[in-house]
Amino acid sequence: MDRTNSIVDYMDCISCQKPSENELIYETQYWKVILAPDQSYLGRCYVTLKRHCGDLAELKREEWLDLAEIVKKIENSLKKSFGAAMFNWTCLMNDAYQNIPPNPHIHWHLKPRYNHKIEFAGLTFEDVEFGHHYARGTNREFSEEITQKVIEKIKENL
Amino acid sequence: MDRTNSIVDYMDCISCQKPSENELIYETQYWKVILAPDQSYLGRCYVTLKRHCGDLAELKREEWLDLAEIVKKIENSLKKSFGAAMFNWTCLMNDAYQNIPPNPHIHWHLKPRYNHKIEFAGLTFEDVEFGHHYARGTNREFSEEITQKVIEKIKENL
Repeated sequence: MDRTNSIVDYMDCISCQKPSENELIYETQYWKVILAPDQSYLGRCYVTLKRHCGDLAELKREEWLDLAEIVKKIENSLKKSFGAAMFNWTCLMNDAYQNIPPNPHIHWHLKPRYNHKIEFAGLTFEDVEFGHHYARGTNREFSEEITQKVIEKIKENL
Repeated sequence: MDRTNSIVDYMDCISCQKPSENELIYETQYWKVILAPDQSYLGRCYVTLKRHCGDLAELKREEWLDLAEIVKKIENSLKKSFGAAMFNWTCLMNDAYQNIPPNPHIHWHLKPRYNHKIEFAGLTFEDVEFGHHYARGTNREFSEEITQKVIEKIKENL
């Protein structure tokens, strides 16, 4: 049995769970776009494949093309919504390899980067590392109310 | 004039330069695959777009589909060549934003990750951060002879 598609893997996989309505930004046929809990980079999100698959080499043509449309749409919204200057896209999946056997599920990290201070919903954001690798070890979680404001803003500009 | 396609940008862009034969692994219609100078992760390479374009949102369908084939081919070779366990793909382009105006050129960083010690060409490699974010601030450059051995090995398994 192909482990990457077994029912056990599927059930154990947090990325296979249906996102709650209060974290989902939007979804397409193949991907879901979710606001990340850590908003150190305002508008940071995950773009997660809707089927359980753990290696980019196994992505299908239609999944790549759907991703291409998401990249356009979400980057455009983050520029309009918050003034993002550019974007860092990463597909890492390292944590999944802390388990034996590993059970990776393809998801992209999208970090909008900002070349100026941003004010949103009464909060201030500053990307002090702009022009350099993203910072790690930071964590900025919002109240439910602010989270919804961020999601609504991104949705408005999709 | 669209700055992302101006002749000045094109001439100023290091990623637009033709790679030397002793760093090129292979190329397709739209992308070139180049061995990265820093080999802290054995087989680390860049997958660079052959036209001057600075935002993934502007990639064309045929460029995404060509990338999809490269992902399959290069991951497969790195598994066969050196026993890579999984891969970190990132598209960052932060450094380009240290200049005003910025002049980014799409390139992917591919870091093969290893869950066991590797011996190659008399050298030893250990991915001590396996299962975690890639290490930064490391640099391991090879002699010309070793570089060529690495490239030849990857080419053999393409």
